[in-house]
Amino acid sequence: MAKKPNKLKARLPRGFVDRSAAEIRAADEMIGKIREVYERYGFDPIETPAFEYTDCLGKFLPDTDRPNAGVFSVQDDDEQWMSLRYDLTAPLARHVSENINEIQMPYRTYRAGWVFRNEKPGPGRFRQFMQFDADTVGAPSVQTDAEMCMMMADAMEALGIPRGQYVIRVNNRKVLDGVMEAIGLGGEDDAERRLTVLRAMDKYDKFGAEGVRLLLGAGRKDESGDFTAGASLSDMAIDAIIEILEASAIDDLIDYTNDLTFKTAALSKFAINESFDAGFRELKLISDLVKSGGYMSDRISIDPSVVRGLEYYTGPVYEAELLFDVKNEKGEVVQFGSVGGGGRYDGLVKRFTGRDVPATGFSIGVSRLMSALKNLGKLDVEDAIAPVLVTVMDGDAEALGRYQKMTQDLRAAGIRAEMYQGNWKKFGNQLKYADRRDCPIAIIQGSDERDAGELQIKDLIEGARLASEATDVDNITWRESRPAQITIKTDDLVQTVRTLLDQQAEDRRRLSGEV
Amino acid sequence: MAKKPNKLKARLPRGFVDRSAAEIRAADEMIGKIREVYERYGFDPIETPAFEYTDCLGKFLPDTDRPNAGVFSVQDDDEQWMSLRYDLTAPLARHVSENINEIQMPYRTYRAGWVFRNEKPGPGRFRQFMQFDADTVGAPSVQTDAEMCMMMADAMEALGIPRGQYVIRVNNRKVLDGVMEAIGLGGEDDAERRLTVLRAMDKYDKFGAEGVRLLLGAGRKDESGDFTAGASLSDMAIDAIIEILEASAIDDLIDYTNDLTFKTAALSKFAINESFDAGFRELKLISDLVKSGGYMSDRISIDPSVVRGLEYYTGPVYEAELLFDVKNEKGEVVQFGSVGGGGRYDGLVKRFTGRDVPATGFSIGVSRLMSALKNLGKLDVEDAIAPVLVTVMDGDAEALGRYQKMTQDLRAAGIRAEMYQGNWKKFGNQLKYADRRDCPIAIIQGSDERDAGELQIKDLIEGARLASEATDVDNITWRESRPAQITIKTDDLVQTVRTLLDQQAEDRRRLSGEV
Repeated sequence: MAKKPNKLKARLPRGFVDRSAAEIRAADEMIGKIREVYERYGFDPIETPAFEYTDCLGKFLPDTDRPNAGVFSVQDDDEQWMSLRYDLTAPLARHVSENINEIQMPYRTYRAGWVFRNEKPGPGRFRQFMQFDADTVGAPSVQTDAEMCMMMADAMEALGIPRGQYVIRVNNRKVLDGVMEAIGLGGEDDAERRLTVLRAMDKYDKFGAEGVRLLLGAGRKDESGDFTAGASLSDMAIDAIIEILEASAIDDLIDYTNDLTFKTAALSKFAINESFDAGFRELKLISDLVKSGGYMSDRISIDPSVVRGLEYYTGPVYEAELLFDVKNEKGEVVQFGSVGGGGRYDGLVKRFTGRDVPATGFSIGVSRLMSALKNLGKLDVEDAIAPVLVTVMDGDAEALGRYQKMTQDLRAAGIRAEMYQGNWKKFGNQLKYADRRDCPIAIIQGSDERDAGELQIKDLIEGARLASEATDVDNITWRESRPAQITIKTDDLVQTVRTLLDQQAEDRRRLSGEV
Repeated sequence: MAKKPNKLKARLPRGFVDRSAAEIRAADEMIGKIREVYERYGFDPIETPAFEYTDCLGKFLPDTDRPNAGVFSVQDDDEQWMSLRYDLTAPLARHVSENINEIQMPYRTYRAGWVFRNEKPGPGRFRQFMQFDADTVGAPSVQTDAEMCMMMADAMEALGIPRGQYVIRVNNRKVLDGVMEAIGLGGEDDAERRLTVLRAMDKYDKFGAEGVRLLLGAGRKDESGDFTAGASLSDMAIDAIIEILEASAIDDLIDYTNDLTFKTAALSKFAINESFDAGFRELKLISDLVKSGGYMSDRISIDPSVVRGLEYYTGPVYEAELLFDVKNEKGEVVQFGSVGGGGRYDGLVKRFTGRDVPATGFSIGVSRLMSALKNLGKLDVEDAIAPVLVTVMDGDAEALGRYQKMTQDLRAAGIRAEMYQGNWKKFGNQLKYADRRDCPIAIIQGSDERDAGELQIKDLIEGARLASEATDVDNITWRESRPAQITIKTDDLVQTVRTLLDQQAEDRRRLSGEV
């Protein structure tokens, strides 16, 4: 039979999802913990709307008549193009520029919000997702970058990620600029080759030294036979870059005692140019400052191999990496990796104001961090206690009024409660509902109990069954003190329910081994 | 001189605004309080994304090739139209329909989220704003509507709105249907005239009985001379409608003792038709249930004059009104009025599933409620304490390290603190920054103090000055115990700052008259 043509199909556009109660509660809790850290560091919230003018987002090339792909754009009545924000940094730059005379610099801010990408969705890749950013605008010195790194480290620990399972890795774009100058790729004509070199360096985690050597030299053929052209660098340049990538700490590379000098063989063949000098000195200062703050290299590590977001950053870059193992989609064991990062971007506000306004900040991918916390068992996704159910045995107005009063009395005492609102005539459905909803307690009052001024309280968590897994005397005594159903006076409802909920909480603590 | 052509202007599209830290904190606090009430009632959060397929939102007329005005729409790669949600009800209907086999009915949910209207913005009228909705799906009985009304009342009180300054007004769409049938406008052909009548009734608050009489009869000319055509009803019909609008409670209109009978003169000329009967009986049951729950008519009032959102609702409708006076844009004193409302809509899910799925729910306008709370002084918009400022007197790495350590020590103790990150060489700018930022305390350590292992703590709130407004002996003693600047040992930093912050909090309590 053909389907009815007029019934509308309920479905979401690709790349968009609903969030469940458990996900919302877990995300709120996680964001709340991070926010506490940011507030303690003196950061204040600021929020911008979903739409910006497309040109303010920097996604409008002058020669095209539509905004670039990658963003969702609509044309306003006055024909100006607006786009949904694709990150939280471009809107911040617009906000700061628009209010530059009122804002007290240095300006520390944070914000969590949805961003939108008009891209092909895939597994774990959505077209709407949440970012959580922190930025300081108007602070030129690298103490600000050092503060960002400490704040990221504190955020990781506030979420319960143990020390040793995360590290904040820090590098400096200027060091990478120094590399480019040293190997003769510093000029404007070499922008393309510079990008090839940086992309190759960025593959170090994936392909190792050998793979990067090929990408920096003659090119690399992968397992499927696809060939990636190389950067055709000299062996001397390649050796120097590999030394940088292999250094586990900045002190392996650089001797700071007199003027800066390189410690390693290949790098020593190059002079310390101005970019190297500035870059390494800044990294050293960051390292000193975070150590003064009590953050040793097990938490914040200067790592010259970090390469990220290269078009945009102008100084220090940093990222938060999680070090525990997970299986990737191919089933291979890999480190969880980055959950957020950022760096110094001194140019974004200048686009609007013409003035130099230094800024540094980072972004946390909320869903990625949530999946990391789930892996670590640090995300309590089901901690909300379902409501107490007041069942309905009789549907006349007077009876309903009594059930309603019980429900309101429980609520007024701060106890989560609901009165059954489906078809009351099938009582079995009410208990099925309570079961599927994980209700801890059901309240039952038929006409006999009503006449006697009594009601029944049913313990749906069955403390006895739960506690039966324990065999020691203490727990057996506990179990025996917990009947599954009791009859009480109506007036004792609130007190009895509260006591029972407390006992159930005690059960959970015993079962989880906390007692 | 001509402006530089290449500098981008930082501005937002019309109808969109940034939210300040104070607004964000106030909104979060308000939403948190409402959420607590909803959770207590057994409601769980659910969130849908910003985009839906346009046809799911019901904003796509079959004969047009673009979505209707009023929504922001983009075409996906596969040419399907998607729109940003314009409310939170249509997406909920889609969500329920899509997951109808997994969802445990009755399904109580709430959600706060941004919605988007592609309309002409005006004062207080934005194109992106926040709604906060609660709905129960799959519950056919009016006990559910009664619960919604009690929950709205509890939400108002949780926000600090005193009893007597708000009321939840309840009516039933079926009563209005009964009116239409009684006056002979029940048929399909009279849809247009019905709407005219309902619009006229909706103007009762604004124009009073006399104005509505004109709108129901021959028409009304306003002060500017504009004429609004009337509904041309008979005098008998007009008298009956005015009786409904003027009734302050349902018992003024209806005698429930035997079968239902009208109590008032004009209405008594009409028979109790089926819609009247069902509508009034439902209202009576709601009234009985909320009274059983402890909600008297000073909190929830059955009010047959409520007319709202008429296309969509199929049963009880309800709204939360604030009763205190404010000045409107013309400077006239008016009641603040509605901050939210809703009703029963049994048809929305049926569009997708073909099944009857009863639902009822309401929406709160977050900014409107916030402005009401501001008016009542119940919104503490500036309760966040600004950070303690660690000033910078010397910029070498060692000194910066020490300042950094002080800052981190304060933060580690849970004290909001920042180290100055602007140009440290102008010390005056640092104190100016502290002043503009409302920092409560500044920490100062020059090289002399450093050598002596000491530092200075400056009380920027000037407890002495604040407390000077009080003249009693107790407060004078208090004031004299508060010097503006003290020198302490570096090791005593955290303890001293904490004590000083506590004293400042005590000052605020004294000044606000709490002590």
